[in-house]
Amino acid sequence: MGPVNLLLEIFLAFGAAKLAGELFERLRLPALVGEIAAGVVLVPVLGVIHGETVLEVLPEIGVIFLLFEVGLGTPAKKLLEVGQLSLGVAILGVALPFGAGVWYLYATGHPTIEMLFGGAALVATSVGITARIFSEKNLLDTKVARVILGAAVFDDILGMLFLAVVSGIALGGFSWWGLAIVAAEAIGFVLFLIFLGQRITRPVVQQVEKFKTRNPTFAFALLFCLGLSVVAAQIKIAAIVGAFLAGMVLSDYDVKFRLKEKFEPIYDFFVPFFFFAIGAKLNPTQLFNPATIGVAVVITMIAIFTKLVGCSLPAFRLGWKQSVAIGWGMVPRGEVGAIVALVGLSAGIISQSFYGVILFMVMATTLIVPPLFPLFLKGIESESTPALKN
Amino acid sequence: MGPVNLLLEIFLAFGAAKLAGELFERLRLPALVGEIAAGVVLVPVLGVIHGETVLEVLPEIGVIFLLFEVGLGTPAKKLLEVGQLSLGVAILGVALPFGAGVWYLYATGHPTIEMLFGGAALVATSVGITARIFSEKNLLDTKVARVILGAAVFDDILGMLFLAVVSGIALGGFSWWGLAIVAAEAIGFVLFLIFLGQRITRPVVQQVEKFKTRNPTFAFALLFCLGLSVVAAQIKIAAIVGAFLAGMVLSDYDVKFRLKEKFEPIYDFFVPFFFFAIGAKLNPTQLFNPATIGVAVVITMIAIFTKLVGCSLPAFRLGWKQSVAIGWGMVPRGEVGAIVALVGLSAGIISQSFYGVILFMVMATTLIVPPLFPLFLKGIESESTPALKN
Repeated sequence: MGPVNLLLEIFLAFGAAKLAGELFERLRLPALVGEIAAGVVLVPVLGVIHGETVLEVLPEIGVIFLLFEVGLGTPAKKLLEVGQLSLGVAILGVALPFGAGVWYLYATGHPTIEMLFGGAALVATSVGITARIFSEKNLLDTKVARVILGAAVFDDILGMLFLAVVSGIALGGFSWWGLAIVAAEAIGFVLFLIFLGQRITRPVVQQVEKFKTRNPTFAFALLFCLGLSVVAAQIKIAAIVGAFLAGMVLSDYDVKFRLKEKFEPIYDFFVPFFFFAIGAKLNPTQLFNPATIGVAVVITMIAIFTKLVGCSLPAFRLGWKQSVAIGWGMVPRGEVGAIVALVGLSAGIISQSFYGVILFMVMATTLIVPPLFPLFLKGIESESTPALKN
Repeated sequence: MGPVNLLLEIFLAFGAAKLAGELFERLRLPALVGEIAAGVVLVPVLGVIHGETVLEVLPEIGVIFLLFEVGLGTPAKKLLEVGQLSLGVAILGVALPFGAGVWYLYATGHPTIEMLFGGAALVATSVGITARIFSEKNLLDTKVARVILGAAVFDDILGMLFLAVVSGIALGGFSWWGLAIVAAEAIGFVLFLIFLGQRITRPVVQQVEKFKTRNPTFAFALLFCLGLSVVAAQIKIAAIVGAFLAGMVLSDYDVKFRLKEKFEPIYDFFVPFFFFAIGAKLNPTQLFNPATIGVAVVITMIAIFTKLVGCSLPAFRLGWKQSVAIGWGMVPRGEVGAIVALVGLSAGIISQSFYGVILFMVMATTLIVPPLFPLFLKGIESESTPALKN
């Protein structure tokens, strides 16, 4: 592909994703669903984009930076503060959807491997949409928000574990020994970075700070993100887990070096390509038949109901209102569910129609949360003085 | 190439470029030469990077964004103010190096096509280094700086014309008619955007401003840059000319929407890949033989002398000191010279050793200017009150 086509495809994909995102936001719907829709329209429907750069390379970098930003918003310290309650919310909120999803797919005679991928895709909450609603309503400082943000991290990590395990099974066959090694590595890696990440990066950051290059700490942050992604992939955890943890470790430096602010344009450029590519891989003709739609609707209902119940129960001692708000805030699946689906599709493990089912679930759970959230948030107020907007 | 290798190569290339850039800056040398050196070490010498993404795709995007940023720093209004004098400086500063370069290469028996490429590579000044020195010394508001910045734009455009023409000759054979069409298109495109760019973009920007997406004007700026690049390439002008002109048109919105500030991280991420790739294409074994080094040294001396004389003469009425400072400030070749070399090499038109010669000239003219510039700037002072740093 010549350089002109490269630029033309980047222009078309980015422009379509941004316009569709804008359209969805005007309809008070999440922009990411618009970006996915743009991918569906331009690639499988109109067939105007073919190049690896727009469909593989930029999305690959985009998903790394997406998880890095999620990590930047999740300081390890706050995580340890919330701790136990969030852990409970995360664990039951993962176990229930996985169990119910696998059971349903088993009962309806899906292949074992699709059953496991389906269950794994139901696991991880995408907390971005919820966090944004809290932020807009100035409620990020509430117990409900803190529990959700804390739980979403454990939940992401559990989601990654599920992804690592099902990928391992898909590639090399199942063994308890292999499962134990991957799980131990992942848990060790996460704990190591939560407890020692700060101590290791501080002396490096102090040196980098003095560098003469423009924005040295920002360049270091990008390198740290890329480096931990590579390490995570090397030890058979997904690369995005490394990117997420890199963001978490560096979140303590955010205020000093304005990392989030500087990272924003990078995010704004790359991330739309990820959601665009998610849509680009969909084959709409495979989705639009009654049987597939039936499965998609049932899977979506399971996804909503099990997450709502699984995340509300452990938080019940906070009171009825608070716990249900937590459950509802955890309902949206997003990037991780989409990543599981994409890994399965790319490896030839799940069918085109089942990829469509998972994508339907991801989009539906993401679309349903914002319009109904105000109902669940009534009477929940910020505990401290209103946070300063920066 | 798997996604892990993709991330690993991005990590290695970006890390090496940034570290080498830092090292060069500590030695008070331009970072871009360090980034080129990193490419030479990692690719032809150590052979650790092979993927298209790092060697082709990211550099391709990088050079577009590089020229866009140059354009953002060149408001069309200021350009029209300086006008005639800058035009004179640019024209003689282009004609002399081209003429002398072609003459020398002709006299020493180089193939015709190499002769034309060599001449074209000698043409365009890279004003970034000079602008940075002026900025550090708070001299951007002097007549000397304004003439240089204005001349550099005409000079870039003339450089692009030369590139377009030699590319055209290389691909389709020479014809006066073809040359006239390309030249007319390029001139028309440039004048159109200088005079009507504002009027066309204003109503669009006024709409985009109201968009709900995060940073809508920034997304629009990226799209405008990519869009004009595609248009420029379609009408057979180089894509980077489109990117440059997009930046120039949008420079009037910079203050209002903080475009430069938001664009900085994008620049910081992408542009090192361009200079890295420039070095990556070098074959050092072809360069290190006495004959090639001899040619490189002579070409470099021609490059320095002809630019100094060609740019000083038209400005002589400003006084001896001012005119020589203008000449010296125009000496560095950079991105455009490197682009000409890369186009020639990629098209199989110029040899590996001649690619090395041009690269040597680009790096030498870039390295020699900063250390000696203070001598030329003695007694030149800012005309207005010191500019406010933002």
